[in-house]
Amino acid sequence: MDIFTKVAKSFESQAFMKTIGASLDSVDEGRVVISVGLKPSMMQQHGFGHAGITFSIGDSAAGYAALTKMDGHQEVLTSEMKIHLMSPADGKMLKAVGSVLKAGKRLLVVQSNIFSVGEKKEKLIATMLGTMVPSIADT
Amino acid sequence: MDIFTKVAKSFESQAFMKTIGASLDSVDEGRVVISVGLKPSMMQQHGFGHAGITFSIGDSAAGYAALTKMDGHQEVLTSEMKIHLMSPADGKMLKAVGSVLKAGKRLLVVQSNIFSVGEKKEKLIATMLGTMVPSIADT
Amino acid sequence: MDIFTKVAKSFESQAFMKTIGASLDSVDEGRVVISVGLKPSMMQQHGFGHAGITFSIGDSAAGYAALTKMDGHQEVLTSEMKIHLMSPADGKMLKAVGSVLKAGKRLLVVQSNIFSVGEKKEKLIATMLGTMVPSIADT
Amino acid sequence: MDIFTKVAKSFESQAFMKTIGASLDSVDEGRVVISVGLKPSMMQQHGFGHAGITFSIGDSAAGYAALTKMDGHQEVLTSEMKIHLMSPADGKMLKAVGSVLKAGKRLLVVQSNIFSVGEKKEKLIATMLGTMVPSIADT
Repeated sequence: MDIFTKVAKSFESQAFMKTIGASLDSVDEGRVVISVGLKPSMMQQHGFGHAGITFSIGDSAAGYAALTKMDGHQEVLTSEMKIHLMSPADGKMLKAVGSVLKAGKRLLVVQSNIFSVGEKKEKLIATMLGTMVPSIADT
Repeated sequence: MDIFTKVAKSFESQAFMKTIGASLDSVDEGRVVISVGLKPSMMQQHGFGHAGITFSIGDSAAGYAALTKMDGHQEVLTSEMKIHLMSPADGKMLKAVGSVLKAGKRLLVVQSNIFSVGEKKEKLIATMLGTMVPSIADT
Repeated sequence: MDIFTKVAKSFESQAFMKTIGASLDSVDEGRVVISVGLKPSMMQQHGFGHAGITFSIGDSAAGYAALTKMDGHQEVLTSEMKIHLMSPADGKMLKAVGSVLKAGKRLLVVQSNIFSVGEKKEKLIATMLGTMVPSIADT
Repeated sequence: MDIFTKVAKSFESQAFMKTIGASLDSVDEGRVVISVGLKPSMMQQHGFGHAGITFSIGDSAAGYAALTKMDGHQEVLTSEMKIHLMSPADGKMLKAVGSVLKAGKRLLVVQSNIFSVGEKKEKLIATMLGTMVPSIADT
């Protein structure tokens, strides 16, 4: 099973990614892109995307970037994650680019940059930094 | 407008909190509780609640705890937030208890503890620590 | 070797703790206290203790709290650490109380609270939250 | 007063930077480099540089990078800081490169990358991400 298939299969089984309508845009070794269209149902009280949406796609993109560094049957779990929200989540779509800073045996340091995508430009709205730990797949 | 009304009004206008079915359980000065029933639509690939759900209610509870420390027309925004995921988000319900560690003029240090609530017991599944900044309400 | 002896032996071998004059005040399972007298050589540009001093004793106290949860030959390393600086590091002495939030097999979630100690009162000046990973001792 | 002079003057007044023998290597708008030679007095129990040293120069480099974005009489303080320790602090020297991710009015998001410098190569040993807040100079 190649890494795209492995990541895509796991992504398909994430009900919450489906619930918010997120899509897996690209999978390379150490780099995964996930995007989501902003809908009224995802807003916070000021009419911008809720931080939880930004966090969700950023965390998933970082986790899947880590997964591309794992052997066949291993999976990863988020141990801890930090997010800086730098601009409002506006625009039509959010796009998270997850990558791996350091792939150790017992843990991986990952990051995610999240952009709001408008008609003409992209804007960095948040950056995340965190720790993923390898785990054994259930089956 | 008392603090419960102020928080409840803002909570009502958060579409995303409504989307996931979260409820505002209690509001005290410096302490706010939000809970959400776990549904199949919120799961990640291992059948537990997605970290994004845990983050979302934890962030909102911490933000509203900060809001109880603000003057009438001020609001707050999350500047940065950290989360440690310590146990799987299982059980029937998640409950986030947000509180304020330090209320400064320019920023507030907040925390949230998130519990999974089963039939007989509660278990601490995540802890959050972050920074809220005051902002001026739109109107 | 009891936990106090194990922690004390490791503390003695930390040259940097000796350099700044830190002392190991108490060791209990899951809780370690380290203090340091503030000297002019430790100041930043505003005449308060440098954040690096606060971080150093807080990190060591948290790490040793984690060490009390380890088996005989295991040691721990800081993987990542967060610090919120809430008040200036003034007073005569800083005191760090490290503790363990969650002791897992592959990693431990730890925290530290750092107080400035004056003649009559203690004040919480910083709080830390982080991840320790077990490692095998060199010998 | 140009930014190099402003940063250098503040750096000179940081007793702790002098105590550990750190030097201010370069100052550009939004980017500051600080280095320190590793000495036996800075070690932890495994013979590597203490995390507190890495943190100290990384925090100072990030803070001064923020300072280059401030108007004449403003200074900055660290509000919160995260550090991931990715490799042991070995080599002859540590070098911290601080930069500014986002310069807002009320706070700045900063980062620092810390390298160990050996005879032939540099290695990224730690990365930091944090928040600086503007403050008014004492005089």
